[in-house]
Order: sequence, then structure tokens, then C-alpha cells
Amino acid sequence: MSRIDGRTPEQLRPVSIERGWSKHAEGSVLVSFGDTRVLCTASVTEGVPRWRKGSGEGWVTAEYAMLPRSTNTRGDRESVRGKIGGRTHEISRLIGRSLRAVIDYKALGENTVVLDCDVLQADGGTRTAAITGAYVALADAVAWARTKKIVRPGRRPLTGTVAAVSVGIVAGTPLLDLCYEEDVRAETDMNVVCTGDGRFVEVQGTAEAEPFDREELNALLDLATAGCTDLGKLQRAALDSASS
Amino acid sequence: MSRIDGRTPEQLRPVSIERGWSKHAEGSVLVSFGDTRVLCTASVTEGVPRWRKGSGEGWVTAEYAMLPRSTNTRGDRESVRGKIGGRTHEISRLIGRSLRAVIDYKALGENTVVLDCDVLQADGGTRTAAITGAYVALADAVAWARTKKIVRPGRRPLTGTVAAVSVGIVAGTPLLDLCYEEDVRAETDMNVVCTGDGRFVEVQGTAEAEPFDREELNALLDLATAGCTDLGKLQRAALDSASS
Amino acid sequence: MSRIDGRTPEQLRPVSIERGWSKHAEGSVLVSFGDTRVLCTASVTEGVPRWRKGSGEGWVTAEYAMLPRSTNTRGDRESVRGKIGGRTHEISRLIGRSLRAVIDYKALGENTVVLDCDVLQADGGTRTAAITGAYVALADAVAWARTKKIVRPGRRPLTGTVAAVSVGIVAGTPLLDLCYEEDVRAETDMNVVCTGDGRFVEVQGTAEAEPFDREELNALLDLATAGCTDLGKLQRAALDSASS
Amino acid sequence: MSRIDGRTPEQLRPVSIERGWSKHAEGSVLVSFGDTRVLCTASVTEGVPRWRKGSGEGWVTAEYAMLPRSTNTRGDRESVRGKIGGRTHEISRLIGRSLRAVIDYKALGENTVVLDCDVLQADGGTRTAAITGAYVALADAVAWARTKKIVRPGRRPLTGTVAAVSVGIVAGTPLLDLCYEEDVRAETDMNVVCTGDGRFVEVQGTAEAEPFDREELNALLDLATAGCTDLGKLQRAALDSASS
Amino acid sequence: MSRIDGRTPEQLRPVSIERGWSKHAEGSVLVSFGDTRVLCTASVTEGVPRWRKGSGEGWVTAEYAMLPRSTNTRGDRESVRGKIGGRTHEISRLIGRSLRAVIDYKALGENTVVLDCDVLQADGGTRTAAITGAYVALADAVAWARTKKIVRPGRRPLTGTVAAVSVGIVAGTPLLDLCYEEDVRAETDMNVVCTGDGRFVEVQGTAEAEPFDREELNALLDLATAGCTDLGKLQRAALDSASS
Amino acid sequence: MSRIDGRTPEQLRPVSIERGWSKHAEGSVLVSFGDTRVLCTASVTEGVPRWRKGSGEGWVTAEYAMLPRSTNTRGDRESVRGKIGGRTHEISRLIGRSLRAVIDYKALGENTVVLDCDVLQADGGTRTAAITGAYVALADAVAWARTKKIVRPGRRPLTGTVAAVSVGIVAGTPLLDLCYEEDVRAETDMNVVCTGDGRFVEVQGTAEAEPFDREELNALLDLATAGCTDLGKLQRAALDSASS
Repeated sequence: MSRIDGRTPEQLRPVSIERGWSKHAEGSVLVSFGDTRVLCTASVTEGVPRWRKGSGEGWVTAEYAMLPRSTNTRGDRESVRGKIGGRTHEISRLIGRSLRAVIDYKALGENTVVLDCDVLQADGGTRTAAITGAYVALADAVAWARTKKIVRPGRRPLTGTVAAVSVGIVAGTPLLDLCYEEDVRAETDMNVVCTGDGRFVEVQGTAEAEPFDREELNALLDLATAGCTDLGKLQRAALDSASS
Repeated sequence: MSRIDGRTPEQLRPVSIERGWSKHAEGSVLVSFGDTRVLCTASVTEGVPRWRKGSGEGWVTAEYAMLPRSTNTRGDRESVRGKIGGRTHEISRLIGRSLRAVIDYKALGENTVVLDCDVLQADGGTRTAAITGAYVALADAVAWARTKKIVRPGRRPLTGTVAAVSVGIVAGTPLLDLCYEEDVRAETDMNVVCTGDGRFVEVQGTAEAEPFDREELNALLDLATAGCTDLGKLQRAALDSASS
Repeated sequence: MSRIDGRTPEQLRPVSIERGWSKHAEGSVLVSFGDTRVLCTASVTEGVPRWRKGSGEGWVTAEYAMLPRSTNTRGDRESVRGKIGGRTHEISRLIGRSLRAVIDYKALGENTVVLDCDVLQADGGTRTAAITGAYVALADAVAWARTKKIVRPGRRPLTGTVAAVSVGIVAGTPLLDLCYEEDVRAETDMNVVCTGDGRFVEVQGTAEAEPFDREELNALLDLATAGCTDLGKLQRAALDSASS
Repeated sequence: MSRIDGRTPEQLRPVSIERGWSKHAEGSVLVSFGDTRVLCTASVTEGVPRWRKGSGEGWVTAEYAMLPRSTNTRGDRESVRGKIGGRTHEISRLIGRSLRAVIDYKALGENTVVLDCDVLQADGGTRTAAITGAYVALADAVAWARTKKIVRPGRRPLTGTVAAVSVGIVAGTPLLDLCYEEDVRAETDMNVVCTGDGRFVEVQGTAEAEPFDREELNALLDLATAGCTDLGKLQRAALDSASS
Repeated sequence: MSRIDGRTPEQLRPVSIERGWSKHAEGSVLVSFGDTRVLCTASVTEGVPRWRKGSGEGWVTAEYAMLPRSTNTRGDRESVRGKIGGRTHEISRLIGRSLRAVIDYKALGENTVVLDCDVLQADGGTRTAAITGAYVALADAVAWARTKKIVRPGRRPLTGTVAAVSVGIVAGTPLLDLCYEEDVRAETDMNVVCTGDGRFVEVQGTAEAEPFDREELNALLDLATAGCTDLGKLQRAALDSASS
Repeated sequence: MSRIDGRTPEQLRPVSIERGWSKHAEGSVLVSFGDTRVLCTASVTEGVPRWRKGSGEGWVTAEYAMLPRSTNTRGDRESVRGKIGGRTHEISRLIGRSLRAVIDYKALGENTVVLDCDVLQADGGTRTAAITGAYVALADAVAWARTKKIVRPGRRPLTGTVAAVSVGIVAGTPLLDLCYEEDVRAETDMNVVCTGDGRFVEVQGTAEAEPFDREELNALLDLATAGCTDLGKLQRAALDSASS
């Protein structure tokens, strides 16, 4: 069976990871999973939030947002409505937790990195593209902080790599990296965040229509683990290329 | 190895499900998982939100909140701060999705059920207790709506049952139904929502310290599935007892 | 003439004052006036608000709220609406002033007690039940603070007792402790807060339909003073029983 | 004993009621009680809030606010802070209730009158000055609405008159119409709203320091009733003068 | 051609500048441009906003607002809506910038002056009346601060004078100081802020209907410069009269 | 004298106008003025805001925002702060007014176009780049609406073209199209919006340090008019190229 865009079930969309997209940020990446395009910037500031002062430990956090016309129908700006919606909150928290999973707070020292993930164009999988791109921006920002001696010499704040991908069951078939049209029709939808060594940081599966059984869950986890491994290679390649 | 409160790893805390707790609501349950106590009320109103009007289909949604002193340290009221936090949003959405998984919108007709889950006392697992209790309140509210002919005769809006439980790995051991002290120390934390036939509605696993591998994930899912089965029996018993 | 629930005009509803309802709070009371049920918790923290720092004096404040389905028709959550309504503000302020009337700030030292009064079920008189219950929670919290030496030895921050009751004129007859149905029909409605020695802390009378004259006012004050005396005895009995 | 400004205990401050202060509003009054100056405007609009539509009845409501520098120290604007404080809410509600006490909703028809009471300069008693002035603005607005046939011919929406005054006990002496300096020192503070025939619409007494007894309460009510009678004469005189 | 109110095109409306209108503020002016009436108060506080601390420099800022019924149709209060509208923001910023143009921050020292400009009655040109009046209130406040030695002896924080006026093209004719009816019909609308020596602080021209050409722009600037010169004389006269 | 980036005083930065940047929007442009990069999308919806219904006329409005890390130092998100700042409001209003200057509401019919201008990277002149780019997005959206017959055949809603540029006086020299470093040092700063025929839509000049005289104003207007003419040619070229 071929997918709407001709891919096989276990195939990622074309992925691109463009580093150094912004001249201001310490790390910045324009990541694309097919037509999904997310601008990820990493901002380093010395100091930590008040509740963490004096701990000797750093902090990493994230904010996710969609431009109003990143989607097919224009959405209201959350700044105009005066409050952040539940979905936005949920995804910001997910991105933050995912990246903190590969941070050694002690090695980071009392510094903060904020990852801003702004969706310029949405076509499904924005949160997983955001995590995958934000990791690369974070790596660039940490490298910058080491160069500037904001991170103490010899310290390595980054303990591993993370990438994320969505999987789902559409018309009974488990598929990797859903585009929007597939996502809408999915019976089950799962977002999986893995470290480079194939372990799980986050597993979030939701039955959109029918509950799913253990076998389906296993099939989805297999797809996701393989997809994250591929994404990890693309991240490595991007970081190895001269840039920024 | 015995747990902080003497339980075995695969043992639930004492669970109680008190129906008919409020004289005003169409369904109301005070649910306890050990010292965690959540008041769940189900409110039925005729009509649906604007975006659903004319569809012939109903809607079920949920709002979760904690009383300021339900926890060890008093938290600010979200009404006083003027906005809802990310965690509250996230849990409200989870409860709503979980209950909608067992609702036939067509059978419900253009009616809305709102589940309010207010944590009176927190000791870990508040979201899973809320789902488990809210299901019973929902069942009572649906029964009431059938009696009042708000739901058309012969229609059965409830298509199954749902219960939820937390699991986690503490000091290397997978445990069922974590209390607060265990939750704080957990390396991995997972909330699982199952239907009565043992399938999954939601699986949300998070590595709090170390990423987790497939084997650990499997052990947690085994524990959670068994726990939900037990909770399903307690829900059934509560609904079978004369009350409300 | 007998009342809707069979009481005489000068009779309180059945009142219960359950101490030690919450394991976390320094003082906690579930108070019932008939079907009105309010959970009152007292939270002690060392330190005072900024404007009071260095004064050597403490502070006592209160926050009142209703659960969304504590009433016959579900009300929107104030946290969801993003602002606190006028009625909530008004009652929170009334509770705070009433309790501060029996506090010696110097004896309390630079400590703060916050009283949270959350209405679990409403049937008229929620603010007066809240004051009556909050006093008991406050007494327990002050006792706790003395035991923990947060209040200096020999200091007695509590200078008296307070209780509150509603009175009103229904169909021309002055009645004590109105339930919701009576409250709705009342021509005049008054909330009275008294100290244990029969003096007034607050008198708030409102003509709902017709203005009231001096004679009616006097009849209401007589009823209220007697009602508060009875409530004071019930508070004493609750505090004398072993608990918390 | 003479007061800070030379008055006797039962004497009002110089009161002025200037009608027709604004060219836009249907009724407008600049009222002064000594140095307290409040601009009261009455705005008539056809139609009523949604919850009252189709009832055939009108509505009267009020909004109170202080200019930032109406007080000795500049206060933050509530619009800038993004929320209305409890005191503002409380006073707005009091003014609205007081004026509704003399309105026949049926006679008003489905029309709304909004009273805006903006304190230009504050020196104690702003809420009582506001009620006293707003009554005159309301009377002018109702007269306007009758002239314009917005109120049906022969209907008399105004059923009486209201005026308000503060009283308090300062250094043991009951005083009428407290200025700011007296208000700060008052042991007991009471705001009383009376109709022209000497009956009560609102009685709000608060013990600021010591609880007050029945005898003190009676002395304050005597003072307030006499003060409101005097204010009623001044309102009558203002309405009788050619203006607006 | 004569204007709606009989003025010639280059004529100001009757302008009055009443100093010392408020007993609390360090400077206060009730300014009228015809029926437009704005209360301007200047509040001096020692200290500066956080971002300016330690700079040795002062700060001047402004807040503009309209009373709800200052206009022909009642507007909602921004405090009730919970947010400040774009027009209010824009005008507040304009007033602040205009006054800062004649302030020597060093000479002011680390002190702050806040100008509150509240429109009591609006008939066009509220922002230009506000700037013209606020300048006089600022001058009084600075004089007060020098007397109180809050500004160091010998320092002169005020480096010049500012006044503002609106101009516009109505039915092809350039007019000075538009009233509301003229403003509504204007094809082009311009607000000009000048210093006493005839130079520009702000020029804000907007084509309301047709774009305007260079010649029209020049005619408007000529009118505005002359108008500001006249206003400067009136400001001087007001400041020279004994008052405040 | 050569500028910081080697330009002559009357030279624009390299300008690029990329059409069809987003697959969802009816018009979309990524516009660059040097390092300033703004994504402008135009969203067409049938229908108009409530206050315009039944008029037969359309509406055009704009919203401007900066991504948090579009600037050198990360700024807080306005959605997180829960309110929109004054500068954002001011610029959104300016963009909307500028584009409405070339719209024939009748020809547009009861349709709405929203222009979203999101600054991806800021280096001075973001508002003028936004207007210049938004015009092109608007032209594409109007063309789309004509093709889809949302605009009636034969109607031409676009009556002209608009472009905008900043000018300023830096170290005594009038300069065109300031970059951020020049903007910071400018004594006077002016934004000018012109139609294609060289007339003015908006002129907003501000003295940042010293007031400016008529001669300086004239020099700035000359520069701006020429700059807008050049920008108009670039807009034309972009619209003539095959794209979108």
C-alpha cells in the first residue's frame, strides 16, 4: 500500500536541518519534515530562574507557538486572546522535558537556555520536528557557551542526543511520520522521543478513535525507534557540516 | 522489597469510590486512592458548544484543578493569578480525551457533559484517580439523562469503561500506583488509561532521570494493565451498589 | 408558621464542624450548615507580605471560592474566565476582616495565616459558614504555630472568637440562618459576624426588595446575636474534642 | 469636642451637587462632600443584558473607579494591571444595588442605565458621595428617557430617592460623614444608604479595631439617618434648580 | 468660509489652563480646548524603574485614558475589559515621548514623574490638549521638586516647553485645532508637537481618505507651527499667574 | 561620508521580496531589507466583523509581532505575558491603516483580509519592511479572491500601491533606510508611507534627541519619497515575476 505522498509506511518525509538561520541567536535551526517548517532558536543567558539560584545548576526550557497562518485556516494569536491554549502549553512542556533529558545541569552551571520553536508552516508532526530541530540548536548554543567560557572548561553539559517522531495507525496500518492528512485520519496517534542509543525519553500514545492493543503499540514503537535512529543520523550530519 | 507504605510492587492503594456526594450534580463521586482524594462531578446540559451545533452529536469535556492547600505547601489559586498553568491544562485535556474514548456522540445527541475533577487532597496519582472517579460520575450522569429522556430512548451513549493508574520505576523496581513520595523519586513515570477490555486509551511515559528501555516499558505496561483491571472491578462494584 | 425545612424562625440548621479534614494543612475544617458544606484550611507561613516586613506584626487573609458544581447550575471556573468576580472578592475580603478582628498582630509575630474557604456544596449561607469554620481552622493553626515555636512562647495571637450567621425577612417574618430557597425569597438579607462576647464585627444588611425600617433591623439583629452565641458554643465543643 | 475641620459630630461637610457637568451623558453630576469630588454620569441605552431579554424589564448598574492620582499617593491604574481590585468591585456593586432599590424595572421597560462614578479627588466617603450624586444623575437620565419616549408615557421608573453617608466612631465619639483623616482613625466605620422616607437600603458596619456593641450601633444609625435626610433635601434642591 | 463653530481656519478654540486643580498631586491642570476637557496630574516619586537604577538619571512617563462617558456613546472601561486598547497605548506613548523631549534626565536625578491625562469630556484633539496641559502640570511638579530639594539645587530638569495641536484638511481646506465633527470629516489628520522655539518633537500625519501631497503637508505644518506658538503663550501666561 | 555598511546616504539596503512562501495563505511574502526579515501572510475570509455587517463593504486589518529571538536579546513572548505591548499595537495599527489607504471597500465586498507580519529577524525598519511586503501579499490575496469569484467580476479592490521606508538624521546627516545601529544613534527618526504616485499615506517623525526644524524635515521627506519610489519598482517586479 502506498501513502498519500507515495512513501512506504516506514519512511520519513524529506528532512532538512538548516543551521545558523538567525544572526542573533546562539543556536538557530530551520527544520523541515516535508512541508512542516519550524524555526528553532536557542538563547543562552547567564543566571537561572529564582527558584534555582545558588544551586550551581543550570536550566533548559522551551516555548512552542504557531504563526497564525501556519495552518490551513488562520488561527487567532494567543497574544491577542491574552492567554495560551492548552495544546501550546502541553507541547512547550514536552519539548522542554525532552531536551532536559540530555542535559547535565551541574556541567551547564548557573546558565539558562531557552528554546523557541515557532512553526512557520504546519503539515503534521510540528512537535516532533520542533524537538528534533531544537536539539541541534541546543547543541550549537552549548558549543557557543563553551567557546565563550560561560560553561566552564572541561564541562560537557550535553550528555546525549534526542530526536522525536510521530507514528500512527491509519486504516489499520502503522505509519511513520504522519503528515496532516494522515494525522486527521489516524485511529491512534503516538509521539515518541528517543535518545541516540535507542532508549525512550517520552512515549505519548492516544487512541483517537478505537482503543489500541498491545500488539499495535509494539508495532508503533518499532517504527518510531527506527525513525528516531534515522533522524539522529541527520542531526549528526548537520552538526558535522561547517556552518553557523 | 516492601514499599514505603508496606505495599507489594503490584498492589494498589486502598481505593474508595463514593457515589452521590453532591446533591446538585447529575453524577458525583468522591474517589480516593490512599490519601489522594478527588471530587468528581458530572454536569449535563442540553446543547453543545457552537462549533458542534447542528451535528446531532454531543460533547464531553473535563476541567481539573487542585485546591490551594490540597498539597503539602499552599499553591496560589489559578483564578487569583488570572491564568491556568500548563500542568492543569494538560491534565484537563487528558481526562477529557480519556472519557470521550468511551462515548458514542451520536447516541448522546446534542447534549454536553462537563466533568469537574477537584483535588481536595493530593498524595500522588491525582490525574489517574480523577479519570477513574470521573468515569463513575459520567456513568451516573448518562443514566440520569436517559431517565430524563434527554438522551433518546434506546440510545446508549456509553460504549465501554475506562480506568487509569500510574506506574513508575523507583530504585530500579517497577511499581504500581505511586504515592507522592514514590513519585518524587521515580526514574520513570507513566500514566496509563485502559478500557475495561484491557486496551489502551492513553499511554504517557516520561523519563524523569534516565531514559528507559523497551524492557522497562513492557514491565510498566504489564503492571498498569493489571491495575486498571482491578480498578474496573471496583468501578463496577460501586455502580452496582444502590446509591445516588 | 413553620419553615420550608420544618425549623422555627430562630432555629439554626444542623451544624457540624469536622476538624483535621486535611493531612497537609496546619488547620482544616469541613463545616456544614445543613446542606451547605465548606472546606476551610488554614496555612501558616513564616514571613509577611512585603508592605508589612520589618513591622514585627503578622497578617491573616482569606480566599473564598465555589467549586463549579457546588450550585444547582454549573458556574464557570474563575480560573478559566481569567478573572475573579465581584462577589468572590467581596466575600474573601469579608472573611479576612472578620478573622483579623480577633488577631493580635504583635503576638502573631511576622507570620502569615491564609484561610482558604472552598464551597463544596452550596445551599445558602456559604459566607457565614465559611467564617464560622475558618475560625476553628485558624484556632488549630495558631495552636500548631505555638507548639512549633513559630509563635513565641507566652504569646496569644487569638484574642477572641468569631462566628457568623445570616438572617433575613421572608414573607414578613424575620428568620435565622436562611437556606437557599429562603434566601431567594427574602425581602431583606443580612449577614452578621459577632465575637463570642456578643459584640459586632460586621453587620451587612441589604434590602433585596423593599427598604427595611429600624424595627425590622432590630428584630434581625436580635436573631443574629442569639444565633452567633449558639454557633460559638458549637465551635468551643469542636475545639474541646480530641482531634486534629 | 470639635472635629479636625471644626465640624460638630452630627454635621455634614459642605456638599455641592452640580448637574449637567458633561455635554454627552443623559445625566451628569459633579458631587462634592468637602474635598471628595466624584463625577457621576448616567448613560441610557435601549436594550438590556442578554440574561434579561424578553422580560419586559430594565436594568440599572454602576461602575466605580478612582483616578490614579485622586489620592495622596498615586495608585496603579486597574486597566494597566489588567484586573479590577476587590474594593472597586465591592463599591461598584454597592452603588448598583442602592440605585436599583428605587427603580421599578417594569416601568423602565427594556432599557439600561449605567452609572459611572469616577473619583476625581478623594478625601473619605467616596462611595457615599457617589451614591448621593449618582441618584441625581439617574433622576436626570430617567427624565430624559421619558421626554424621548424611551420610557413609555405615564410610566414612572423612579419609585423613591436614595442618599448615603458614612458614620464612624473616632476616639469613642460617633461622627457623621468622616473625612479621610477621621476614617483612618475610626474604630468602627459604617456606610448607610437610606431612602427619602428614612428606611434602610444598605447598612454596612465594620469594626476596624474593637468590635462594637448594640448601643454604639444605635448611635451610628441615628446619626446616619439624620444625615441622609439632610442629603435628600440637597438632592431635591439640586433637582428643582433649572439645569441640565 | 466659516467653520462649524464660526472660527476661521487658522483659529484655535477657546483654551483654558486651570492650575492646581487637585490638592494631592505635585502638579495638576484642567485643560480645555473648546469642549474637550482633560485632567492632567503630575506625580513625583523618588526612585526610577528598575532598568534605570544606578544611572543617576530620572524618568518621565505618561498614561492617557478616557472616562467611559467622556464621549457621545459610552465606551467600555479598559479595566473591565482587562486590557488596554491600541489607541490608548499609542497616545500614552506619544505624550510620554513629547514631554521627555524637554527633560534633562541628569538634572532630574533618579526621580520619576508620571503624567496622568484623563479625558473628562471629549470633543476632538484630546491628545494634543493632554500634551499641552501635561506640560504645565510637569512644570509645576518640577518646581515643587526643586523646592523640596528632591531635585538638587541649581539643577534645571526642564530644558524647554512643548505644546501640541491637531490640524487637518476638511473639504479641501486646511484647518487648525479640529473639533470632533471636523475630525470625523477630515481627509487628512495630523498631530504636531512643537517646542517653544518652533521646532518639531513629533509630526504624525495620516491620510484618512485620500493620500496627501507635499503642498498640503506644508500648509498643515504652517498652521500647526503657528498654533503651537499661540499655545505656548497661553502656557506661559498660566504659569506666570499666581496659583497652585 | 560612508555608512556603517558602506551605503551612501540615499541608498536602500538590498531588498528581496519572495512571493508564495507559505502553502496555506492566499498571499505570502518573505520580505528582506538587509538583515531585517519579515514573513507577511494575507488571509482572506468571507464575511466582515460584526460592526460592518450589512454595509456591503469589506475590511482589511493587520497584526504585527516579533519572534522572541528576532532581536539581539531575547524578548518575552506577548502571549506568555498575557498582553500586547504598546509598540506592537502601534505598529499593527500603522500597517492596517497603510494598506486600507489603497483599498476600495465597496469593490472588496463583505470580505476580510488579515495581514500577519511576523518579524523573523530584526535589524531596523521592521515596520516599513512589513508594510512593503504586506502590500505584495495583499495584492496576491486580492488576485486570488478575484479568481475564486469571492470578489465580484469586474471589481478592483486595489486602488493603488503602498510602500514604506524609514529615514533619520544620524550625526547631522539625513539617511535612508536605517539599520538597527543607525536607528539607535539617530537624533530624529521618521517612517514614511507613500503611494505609488508619490503622495503620503503616513508621516511619523519623532525627535529622539534634539527637536528637528523644517529644513531637516524637508530633507527627510525628500529621501523618503525617493526611497518609496524605488521600493514601488521592486514590488512591481516581484508581482510581475511568475510565482505564487
